[in-house]
Amino acid sequence: MADLNELIHQPVRLRIMSALVALEEGAQVDFTYLKKLLGLTDGNLGTHLLKLEEAGYLTQDKAFVDRKPRTYIRITAPGRDDFAKHVAALKEILGG
Amino acid sequence: MADLNELIHQPVRLRIMSALVALEEGAQVDFTYLKKLLGLTDGNLGTHLLKLEEAGYLTQDKAFVDRKPRTYIRITAPGRDDFAKHVAALKEILGG
Repeated sequence: MADLNELIHQPVRLRIMSALVALEEGAQVDFTYLKKLLGLTDGNLGTHLLKLEEAGYLTQDKAFVDRKPRTYIRITAPGRDDFAKHVAALKEILGG
Repeated sequence: MADLNELIHQPVRLRIMSALVALEEGAQVDFTYLKKLLGLTDGNLGTHLLKLEEAGYLTQDKAFVDRKPRTYIRITAPGRDDFAKHVAALKEILGG
């Protein structure tokens, strides 16, 4: 039976990963944009980003733009691979 | 944004609901068959069936067959509806 990836399966993280994987390879997204897109609070998004970062699924780069701090998020190759496997497992379960 | 049903989204419950919804309308499945199909223990399957039963998503009927206790499980109409909504929400998220 197909194995679901419980780290990715969690609803907020599934949305985050889905949003990131939809970007072109190598493209990054701003924290504030992602927060608005997903309708999350800073704290909630931050917590889930950290879990995904710790798993090696994304990177967070902090920078100053016009003297304001910004965080840019980018999916990694393992993140892309494990997300694809998770979606395949979901399809297998839902199609059965 | 599409809302995931967190009760159904949990991995074991997602598998249970997917297995039940695949049956013909009104058809039922035996506890032991479902346990083997999903590779679960009695306790784990029992716990998740109870949660889904309490939500009105399935019924459990106990009967004696050849003097042995059997439990038959059947998805309800609300269970079928909410599962369909959940799958639609998943598709929206994964397709986005």
